[in-house]
Parts: sequence; structure tokens; C-alpha cells
Amino acid sequence: MWRCLTLYLVVSASAASDYYQRRAVLIEKSQNRSIGADLVLNADERKVNRLLMQLKHREFDAGFKDPEKFLPLRHFFLARDNITRSGVFKLIRQMPKGASLHSHDLGLVSDAYVFHNLTFRKNLWAKPDPEGRYTFRFSRTVPDDDGWEEVDALRRSDPSFDARLRAQLTLVVPDPFTAYSDIDVIWRVFEGVFRSVGSLLAFRPAFEDYFYRALEELHEDNVKYLEFRGLLPEVYDLDGRVYTPEEVLGLYDATATRFKRAHPDFVGVRFIYAPSRRVNASVVADYVALYERLHAGKYSKFLAGFDLVGQEDLGRTLLDFVPQLLTLGNRTKFFFHAGETDWSYEPSDLNLYDAVLLNATRIGHGYAILKHPELLRIVKERAIAIEVAPISNQVLKLVDDVRNHPANFLVANGYPVVIACDDPGLWGARGLSFDFYVAFMGLSGREGDLRLLKRLAINSIEYSSLDERRKRYAMKRWRQEWDQFVAGVIRSSETE
Amino acid sequence: MWRCLTLYLVVSASAASDYYQRRAVLIEKSQNRSIGADLVLNADERKVNRLLMQLKHREFDAGFKDPEKFLPLRHFFLARDNITRSGVFKLIRQMPKGASLHSHDLGLVSDAYVFHNLTFRKNLWAKPDPEGRYTFRFSRTVPDDDGWEEVDALRRSDPSFDARLRAQLTLVVPDPFTAYSDIDVIWRVFEGVFRSVGSLLAFRPAFEDYFYRALEELHEDNVKYLEFRGLLPEVYDLDGRVYTPEEVLGLYDATATRFKRAHPDFVGVRFIYAPSRRVNASVVADYVALYERLHAGKYSKFLAGFDLVGQEDLGRTLLDFVPQLLTLGNRTKFFFHAGETDWSYEPSDLNLYDAVLLNATRIGHGYAILKHPELLRIVKERAIAIEVAPISNQVLKLVDDVRNHPANFLVANGYPVVIACDDPGLWGARGLSFDFYVAFMGLSGREGDLRLLKRLAINSIEYSSLDERRKRYAMKRWRQEWDQFVAGVIRSSETE
Repeated sequence: MWRCLTLYLVVSASAASDYYQRRAVLIEKSQNRSIGADLVLNADERKVNRLLMQLKHREFDAGFKDPEKFLPLRHFFLARDNITRSGVFKLIRQMPKGASLHSHDLGLVSDAYVFHNLTFRKNLWAKPDPEGRYTFRFSRTVPDDDGWEEVDALRRSDPSFDARLRAQLTLVVPDPFTAYSDIDVIWRVFEGVFRSVGSLLAFRPAFEDYFYRALEELHEDNVKYLEFRGLLPEVYDLDGRVYTPEEVLGLYDATATRFKRAHPDFVGVRFIYAPSRRVNASVVADYVALYERLHAGKYSKFLAGFDLVGQEDLGRTLLDFVPQLLTLGNRTKFFFHAGETDWSYEPSDLNLYDAVLLNATRIGHGYAILKHPELLRIVKERAIAIEVAPISNQVLKLVDDVRNHPANFLVANGYPVVIACDDPGLWGARGLSFDFYVAFMGLSGREGDLRLLKRLAINSIEYSSLDERRKRYAMKRWRQEWDQFVAGVIRSSETE
Repeated sequence: MWRCLTLYLVVSASAASDYYQRRAVLIEKSQNRSIGADLVLNADERKVNRLLMQLKHREFDAGFKDPEKFLPLRHFFLARDNITRSGVFKLIRQMPKGASLHSHDLGLVSDAYVFHNLTFRKNLWAKPDPEGRYTFRFSRTVPDDDGWEEVDALRRSDPSFDARLRAQLTLVVPDPFTAYSDIDVIWRVFEGVFRSVGSLLAFRPAFEDYFYRALEELHEDNVKYLEFRGLLPEVYDLDGRVYTPEEVLGLYDATATRFKRAHPDFVGVRFIYAPSRRVNASVVADYVALYERLHAGKYSKFLAGFDLVGQEDLGRTLLDFVPQLLTLGNRTKFFFHAGETDWSYEPSDLNLYDAVLLNATRIGHGYAILKHPELLRIVKERAIAIEVAPISNQVLKLVDDVRNHPANFLVANGYPVVIACDDPGLWGARGLSFDFYVAFMGLSGREGDLRLLKRLAINSIEYSSLDERRKRYAMKRWRQEWDQFVAGVIRSSETE
């Protein structure tokens, strides 16, 4: 009897040890398909990775024990201050992240700057709409039409004015679940904030300072190249001059040039013309005509491509504009927003098919792509990058718990992904680091490591619209920064 | 100039028409990969499909315009009554759905029955725990230990007793978001309800009536075969007899036989022994030993396989019990719960690797599988069915908006999926139809049609534990019912 039992235990121990080996192999095989798994870290990078993963595992395992403690699970408005104290976040802040490839002209800069700097300028007038939301205008004298009051005077006469004004420049509220009951509600407020901020930025000095500030905030966040989408709105000055779209493009270009001169390590800026999708086909034909003129004009190098913006569920679809977009297709790159929706096989997620068929270079959000197998196959095959903006998707109510974000699949399967910040100024973020943090913690699981972060940074340059020569230059700069970052982390860990 | 323009328009129109054609092909290619796309409907089925899709599109498009109206977006507690009025739901209710393959012994029956029938029986005593939750005991005289009061007396003396009691038999509350702040909170209540219901069902007549009622509710819902998981808890009668696990298994078997005699169209029942995972390895060794005895005993045909239950994030992992489970592996089928979690690369979702390596026949929930590419590949290749329980996953806080449920990917890509109801009695559901409705509306997009529903029903038989001969029999019965269903829908649509 004892002999039998012993024999049985031995057999079972060997079966078990074989099992554990097969298990380890299988897990490794899964992990090997994820973004960054192709990279081999050098000895120094491995040191940094160990530090990073210690920090990540500590946060992850605390969250696994008590989900309340896991920051990516909370709404970003409620988690942000704690994120800034996270060790993982601090490391990500320092890390050279390459390029920011998806953000918008009116959401680039933190709301503190917009409030403290722009709204305290001289000659600023405000007019409330029926719901009390302010539009602004700079003018030496009271503007012609009715209802304008000087902001200085409002500020002096109404002690609650500043709090009200500041709240109108951001989506941040203490209880986002109550304030924004569904996606349509928050999009209405979202577009309202854009109207208010947009009216402030229509004034040339505000326009230029805001954009310069945007580049400063990116640069501080260790992002060295920007591709952003913009409406090319009308801009005016106090002398009554109104700038044409091409001149507005020129203002961006000149500001970027000025910034580069002051920050020689900054690689540059390119612009994606992205007007509103809530128009009819003849307006899109006008957009296309304008784009052609800009493309033939003196800022053509500054111009990276074309897109359309606005809530997809409510807006017109790419399909509506196929004839117009086809005429443009041979002469420009497309960076379409598509599939920024929870719906499936409704017009909004079908935009993904058009983005792919119109040969988009990258896809903005692409949130719904998981539901369309052929598109998944194609974006991988053709390396069409998906611009993933996790905080935006949470704030704009596509997903509460980012662990349910479809990019988990894209990350786990090595899809061409870049991390995007969309409109950080509207939700209390700044630069790209917050989205990198949420992606690293909420889109990659416990084991996603430095290779993921490194690959995401490399992707941001690889999938940019830069030509090959400039890409090589940007990559070379980034590699130098990366090595400095790695050396710096090791140095400071050794002196601790 | 005019000639040029005309030429240009012609070229453009032809380019556009080519575009629309390529677009249709691409969309169709995606759709062809989804569950059910392999089925070809006959003329009658196509008629039913048109009716079904009219109803679906109406609900879908109303939701697309106003998300508040889309029922799968709301918490099931708040949507249920409206779902019962949905035309799509009514059709699904009528539809023969085949088998229910994933539910639990203590959550099978609607809470109305438990309250109105079981708690109004004679000889019932109750005792509150420190938090006021009742445990029950049937006894002719007051039970020996302290604190028991007769339910009849409590009911007479305390007008609020019944409301309190009823609330303890279900998870349903008016405001689930406030009542259940996170996954751990709701799991504590969940297990509390099981304790209360379980103590009621420990009494043999209640045990048998409850199970008979479970089969009635399934039968009414047009489900004709059941595989369910159970703990084999102690059962007693008024004469002080306590039934052994094997005798309890016999009670199930006898009740099922009795039900089949009264309902000759019912195919049958099989049982999956699924005790708690929150134990140590020596207890699992005892489970395994018990399972071996049952397997060698007189109800072995009734026994389908083995599983472990309980909240995975807090429980022990399959990995902890590999030596014990390996000894069982050759003699039984496994139906492991695995990856019922939002975490990634924590012990709970790594259970998925063990489920696959231990050759599970089906996987319970498998919610996290999307994050593990190799496992996705293997479950498809080996046809390991994933038991998807969308309402359970929403109620137990894995996902709010089911359109973010990972099964959207599984459905879109033709994975081996069956729809499961888990514990309908605990959340105000009944049978399988509610989960079929949520799956049809929330996991398949606007275009998922009758072929999806039909394939899900067929899957439920194909992926059951029945042997080939009985599978063929069940399938033949189901096909007859299906044809009757199709004919019935056509008939009633023509007389309307």
C-alpha cells in the first residue's frame, strides 16, 4: 500500500512539474505578442525596468486587493491628484515620449492658463448666451452688437463671476457621474467649452500665446514633436484685421518656429486641417477646396493632412462625403476620426470602413474597431496606427473602467497603437503623461513593462507624418534623450 | 471648361461607384466571420428574420438617437420591466433556445417563488446574524441552539418583516450604483443571499420543489436541457435524517426524472459538481475523492463534470490545486470558472491558462480571455466553449455598458460561445431569454440576426456534455421545435 502511494506521488510530482513548465511557456507565448515584446532591453534599461515594475506591481497588487485604490478605475477627475503622486507616473513624466499625434487646437493647454492668463487680459468683453455660457471678444471699445460687458467690470461687481467663468473653461466637475448622465449630455457641454475657449483664442495675441504655451506644456512633459488637428477659425486683432485661414496657418507656423528657436531640442509641429463634420456635402467641397489652396500655398510643409471632427454618433458620416474626399485622396494624407463610439454597425462605427478604404494614415480613436474583424486584419497588415486616447474615452463616456477599453486587445496583440491626449486642457490633464499612465496601468495588465512604453514612444515617431529623413532625425534625437533618461533614472536610484 | 468639368464628374462618379462596391464587400467580409454567419436560412426562416430585424432595428435606431432608450445600456435591475415589453424579447422568449449550460444550484429560481412559496411553509424558523441577515431552518419544534424564532410569529409581530425578508433573497435594489459601490461589496451581498437561500433549500421538500420549479421556469422559457453547477450541500428532513452528497445527487436525479415524465419534450439534466474555491489543497483533495466516489456510484450518468466556484479575485486559484486536479483530469470533464475578472495578469485571470491546460471542456465566463492571445487561439482551435453571461457580468460589476463586453469580439469573430444565465433568481431574471436578449442587442451590433440566435441555440447542444447519441437526439428534438417556432411566428404575423 505504501509503495503504491509513493509511486503515485512521484508520478504526480513529475506530471505537475511538466505542467508548470507548459504553463510558463504558454503564458510567455501570449505575452510575446504584445506591443513592445519585440524589443530587447540592454543592461541599463533592464535596471530601469526593474524599478518601474516594482512600482507598477506595488500599485497593481494594492488595487487587486482593494479596487478602490486602483487609480485607472476611478474617473480621471477624481483620480488625477493621486496619479500625480504615483511613482509610476513620475517615471513616465520624465520619460521621453516622442510625439503627440492626436490633439485639438482648442484643448491643448491646461485650463489654469486659460483662466489665469487669457481672461485677465485688458480689453476683454463677455456676453452670456441664454444658458449663461460666455462668449468673449477683445476690443478697445464696447463691441457694436448688444449684450457685451467688460470682464473687468463683471469681475468687480459679481464675486461669483470668476468661479462661474472658470467652470466654463473645463469639463471638470466634482461629481462627473451626476453632471454628465450620458454621452450626448457631455458632448453638449464639451462643445460649449470649445465655443467659450474658441472665442478667447480668436484674438491674435491670445491665439499665439496659447499655442506657444501648448508647446511649452508638451516640452515640459518630454514630448518633442506635435501633430495636431485644428479648425483654422477666424482670428482678429484690435485694429480690426481679420486673418484668413492661410494666415492663421501662418500664425501657427511662426509660433512653432519661434518656439523651436528657444528650444532647440524640439523637433517641430505639423497641422491637420480638421473642420466640423456637422455640415453638408457642399461645405465639405469648400473644405476640400480650401485644403487644396493651403496645400499649394506657402505653408504646405506645415500641413500634414485632413480630418473631420465632431461627435460621430450625431454627425455626418465619411460615407456622406465620399465623392469630395476621393478627389482629395491622392493629394493628401487622411487622419480620420472613426469609430469613436460604443455602437456597432451604426453609421458612426461604419466610419471605420471609410477611414480604411480612403487609405487613412492613422485613425483617430478607432474605439469600435474590435467589432470589425476585417478592419483589424487590415490595420495590422498596412500598419495604420490607431490613436488611443484612454482618458478622453473615459471622460466622454465610452467606457468607465479602462480595463474594458478595447485597446487592451490591441496592446495584447501588438497592433500599431499610439497614445493620444485629445483635449487635455478640458479635463485637467497636461501633456501626454496622464494618458501614458492610464494606458500603462489600465490597458496592458500587470506585466506590461518598459518595452511597452518604449515601443509606444517609438511608434509615435514611426507613425507620424514626417518624411523619412525627418523621421530619422526625430528618432535619433529621441534615442539620445532615451539614453539620458535611462542613465538619469539609474543615477538617481543609486544616490537614493 | 465645361467639357473638362463634365469629364471630371464622370470619372469621379465611376470612382465613387467602385468605392461603394468595395465598401460593401469589406463590410460583408467582416460580418461573415461572426457567429451564425455560416448558417443559410430557408425561405421561412428568412421571413422570421425580416420580422426580427424590423423589431431590432427599431429598438437599435431609437437607442442610437437617444441612448437613454437603449435597454442593454441600463442596469438590468432598471431595464428588466421594459425588456419584457420589447418585441425582440418576446420573440426570443418563444424561440427554442436549446440548453442552459451555466447556472448554479442556489440561483436557478425566481425570487418571487422563493419568497411566496418557500418562506410561507410551516415549521420554518429564522435566526438573524449580527447584520440582520436571516438563516432558516425547518423544524417541528424550536431548534436546539439559541436565537431561532418562528417565521410565522415574526411575520405577525413585525409588519416590516416581509419586506426585509424578501430583500434578502435577491440582489435587486432600486439604485444598484449606490448600493453596490464595487465588486467586493456586491460579492459579499451575493454570498449572503446564497447563505439565506441555501439554508431554505437544505430542507428536503423545499430542495425538491425548488429544483422542480427551476425546470418549470426553464421549460416555460423554451429551454429543454440543463447542465448546472452545485455544491451538494447537506439536506435534511423533519425526521432528522441528513442526506449524504450522493443522496443529494440522487434527489436531483429523481426530481429531474419526475419532471421529464410530466414533460416528455424535456431532454434532461446533468450536474457539475462545483464546490467552493476558498479552501486549501487538502479540502480540494477531499472534493476530488468525493467526486471519484460519485463517479463510481449509481448516479454517475447524471454527473457531467467538475468545477470550483466563488469570487476568483479573492479565491484560491486553479494553480494552487494543480496536483489534485491532475489526478482527476483523466476521469472527468472540467467546466472551470476562469477569468471572471477585469484584472489582467493577476492570479484570477491566469486561471484561464489553467483551465485550458487542464483541458476544460467549457470555460465559465472567460471574461478576461481577450487579453490573452494564445488562449484565444486555442479555444477556437479546440472548440472550448466560452459560457458568456452578460447580465451576471453587469450585475456583478465587471462591465456597465455591455457594448464594452469582450464577448462582442468573440461574437464578431465566430468563437465557440454559449449564452448563460448564471443566477437568474438573484437578479430578477428567469430562464435564458433575458441573457439572449442582452446578447442579441448588446453583444452583436445592429446587424446580428436570426442566424446568430440559431447558432447560439445549436451551440448550447453541441457544447453540452451529452454523448454523441444523446446529442443527436437533443438536436433532433430542437430542430422540430425550431421549425414549429418558425411556422408559428409566420402564422401569427399573417393573422395580425
